[in-house]
Amino acid sequence: MAAATLLACDWGTTNLRAWTLDRQGAVVAEKDFPLGVSKLAPGEAAKRFAAEVRPALDAEGLPAILCGMIGSNLGWTAAPYADCPAGLADLARNLTAVADNVRIVPGLRCEGIAGSPDVMRGEETQLLGWLAQHPDRRAGRHVVCHPGTHAKWVLIEDGRIARFVTAMTGELFAVMNAHSVLKSDAPATDDTAFDEGLAAAGDGDALAARLFTARARVVGGKADAGSTPSYLSGLLIGAEVASVPGLLGEPPGQVSLLGDAVLCALYRKALTRNGVAVEVFDGEAAAIAGLFALGAPT
Amino acid sequence: MAAATLLACDWGTTNLRAWTLDRQGAVVAEKDFPLGVSKLAPGEAAKRFAAEVRPALDAEGLPAILCGMIGSNLGWTAAPYADCPAGLADLARNLTAVADNVRIVPGLRCEGIAGSPDVMRGEETQLLGWLAQHPDRRAGRHVVCHPGTHAKWVLIEDGRIARFVTAMTGELFAVMNAHSVLKSDAPATDDTAFDEGLAAAGDGDALAARLFTARARVVGGKADAGSTPSYLSGLLIGAEVASVPGLLGEPPGQVSLLGDAVLCALYRKALTRNGVAVEVFDGEAAAIAGLFALGAPT
Repeated sequence: MAAATLLACDWGTTNLRAWTLDRQGAVVAEKDFPLGVSKLAPGEAAKRFAAEVRPALDAEGLPAILCGMIGSNLGWTAAPYADCPAGLADLARNLTAVADNVRIVPGLRCEGIAGSPDVMRGEETQLLGWLAQHPDRRAGRHVVCHPGTHAKWVLIEDGRIARFVTAMTGELFAVMNAHSVLKSDAPATDDTAFDEGLAAAGDGDALAARLFTARARVVGGKADAGSTPSYLSGLLIGAEVASVPGLLGEPPGQVSLLGDAVLCALYRKALTRNGVAVEVFDGEAAAIAGLFALGAPT
Repeated sequence: MAAATLLACDWGTTNLRAWTLDRQGAVVAEKDFPLGVSKLAPGEAAKRFAAEVRPALDAEGLPAILCGMIGSNLGWTAAPYADCPAGLADLARNLTAVADNVRIVPGLRCEGIAGSPDVMRGEETQLLGWLAQHPDRRAGRHVVCHPGTHAKWVLIEDGRIARFVTAMTGELFAVMNAHSVLKSDAPATDDTAFDEGLAAAGDGDALAARLFTARARVVGGKADAGSTPSYLSGLLIGAEVASVPGLLGEPPGQVSLLGDAVLCALYRKALTRNGVAVEVFDGEAAAIAGLFALGAPT
């Protein structure tokens, strides 16, 4: 087995994924920990990292690089944001050292919509790792979507993240599915209802009204309540893909999806339906590539 | 004191409001009960009504008329919907008798957006009661908005409800304020933040992205977390008034607001900002007028 040279961690709100990487960036060992920052008490991150993460990966003494919400005020320390436009070199210049041999990747900030800033933590490492994996994408303009709790729509120009818009689609689904009149324990696995939701999304305007169709189609006797989660998922994703990418400028004719395979498949269906060309890329591989590019010992 | 001739009840999801009315429809006595249908076991409505509501209002033996969710499958019995267009006479022909001297007003159903039906239960009685109070509104087209958990935008044509659209704005606010990353215990009483939310609503498209500005403005250091509920309220109401009424046809130049005074004041602000002329009417008085028109002994 190749010798590990770097401990790389994607440390998010609910979970910590850790890999040791060899001199070429290949994975030597990997492990998940239920240590998301939402479960950590103040000061706990440093202790758990030293006492649990390093030993479990046989990574005592290795340089470590961390990205994600671990760099927020709920994590290890608040690592300052870097500003867009930003490429890998900009992130590398703004790492925050939090302990001997431990550095945190900065989140990114840009001018958002409606006069507010927009922010990301963790996705920047995946996005720029994806660019490191695909040198052919470093020239020109590309639109990348990273679906999730807070989906990111990202405009990449000449190898740097120019700007981005966040959509709370995943969180809207989660809270409506768990806490509203639409709540359901049924799985979101009904393809037909998902397609009906996509159709009901229209051009994504008047979302509060479109959401009520998820209730009315059941109360009005046109659908079974068990299909509500899939319909809701289709409605929210359909409204997002119809309206959010336009906030970056011209609605894109081509989108690269980067992230979880199941979620990317849903977004692919929604975008394809609208005539948008789609490619799907693995988010975990991109995260590893980004962490390696930023943290590899020189 | 005038003799009571009718027991009138607006029996909703969370609460029951009851009035006894005299021969002219004036209130003789009134009382609220924490007996919303969401708190009732199957079969419980009839017993509690006889054992608690009638005695408390000294209304033994009076004819009773009920509107609201008590006519749903969670209430006393599922009273069939009437179809739009519908006026008071149409509702009066479709009352459901559930016991001696007890009748339930039908909810209304119409063709909604995206191929789904739309439905209401309770608001129809307020809306047609309002028309009974205002004979001058019985000719022509009028747009009425009834704000609430599920806000109703209603097109009235020649004295009948032609059609309507429901927006889940109040419920979106409640679940996001209680269960999402935007959750807060702060009161929604910050006028400046409400106005900022209205401004951020734009034309109401891309709501999932606009919602994230409520998070980003705090994380990015531009606002205090305590202002989030007011900002969220402004954003959701602003998005609704900018996009939902257009689903009824031409965006209206004039809107009548009917309902709770505090909520109507927020909608008035949002509509006025968009150049729409607004009048505000009391929802409770309209409900009483509607129940009296439908239930008064002849």
